[in-house]
Amino acid sequence: MGKRRVGGSAARLAAVPAPRLVLASRSPQRRAILEQVGVAFDVVVPDVEELTAGDPERVVVENALRKARAVGAPLTLGCDTEVVGDGRVYGKPADADEAERFLRELSGRAHTVVSGLALVEDGRERTAVCATTVAFRDLDEPTLRWYLDSGEWRERAGGYAIQGRGAALVRAIDGDYLNVVGLPLATLLELKPSLPLSHP
Amino acid sequence: MGKRRVGGSAARLAAVPAPRLVLASRSPQRRAILEQVGVAFDVVVPDVEELTAGDPERVVVENALRKARAVGAPLTLGCDTEVVGDGRVYGKPADADEAERFLRELSGRAHTVVSGLALVEDGRERTAVCATTVAFRDLDEPTLRWYLDSGEWRERAGGYAIQGRGAALVRAIDGDYLNVVGLPLATLLELKPSLPLSHP
Repeated sequence: MGKRRVGGSAARLAAVPAPRLVLASRSPQRRAILEQVGVAFDVVVPDVEELTAGDPERVVVENALRKARAVGAPLTLGCDTEVVGDGRVYGKPADADEAERFLRELSGRAHTVVSGLALVEDGRERTAVCATTVAFRDLDEPTLRWYLDSGEWRERAGGYAIQGRGAALVRAIDGDYLNVVGLPLATLLELKPSLPLSHP
Repeated sequence: MGKRRVGGSAARLAAVPAPRLVLASRSPQRRAILEQVGVAFDVVVPDVEELTAGDPERVVVENALRKARAVGAPLTLGCDTEVVGDGRVYGKPADADEAERFLRELSGRAHTVVSGLALVEDGRERTAVCATTVAFRDLDEPTLRWYLDSGEWRERAGGYAIQGRGAALVRAIDGDYLNVVGLPLATLLELKPSLPLSHP
């Protein structure tokens, strides 16, 4: 108690360094987004059982919370993303055939990328959802072949990566672009406006 | 005439290699976008007088045409982009003070990025316009300071780069993301569907 009093002015308390952000994700895309704007962070990959069925908005928030809780650092960010088109969820294609089926179904139409964020700070949990609409071009056979041959569809929900060659598949988006890449940055900055941005 | 006949079947004519694309622009962002999807191209920087006043859609198409015509390769792409908010055009800020004024004006509101494309192929001219709406977050003072200190606003129309730290300024977009970066790829692929995408 005495220790607390020593140097316990409001000004000094405010100067205590904020805990460093821990990203509870193995995704290189999510790391790259935080690095792009100079957010300092560490990565701890959580080991959790994820929900795989149910309302997408509920699923992504629940999974983001599970990831953040499993890591349990003083300031932990969990994130989960689903690609939803016409009521069905597009996960990571198992093989080239499934990737082709996904891309044919997404061609010439709009789908939605839904992310859940969970920020757990000293036991206090805040969550948010971000949805971005992605309209695909009408994919002709050469474009489809080219993209499948690239192999870029591997390990990508929906079978494409908008920040890579997948850019050639997309006509337009409505919402946060970085949400489609993997982490809705603007939503994170709303959830935690004091998150320090730096110049690495 | 005899030469034309020799090997002049439709199949052989179709196999004649298409001319390589020449990009009439010094912009590293435009190059990076073509590279992202494996379009092979050369760069020739045109020396033209650009329109600076007038209706933005007319201005960007006219400037794109002037650039492409000035280069005059068998297949030339010209591009010009303007950032337009509330009826005024935001060019490249002259200094940090102007960059700050731009960002304060764009803060918490939506503006439009308008690009004109001109594809000149063996004298045949095709043009297109692409517009993307960009909604900025409400920028607080620390964010504004951080961005101005980054120096990233230099040489950027509107004073920001969405593909860099400027991502932290943007809430959402409506339209083609790559148009905001510098080249509306989907519009280019509509203009020239046969443009070969490769795997570099």
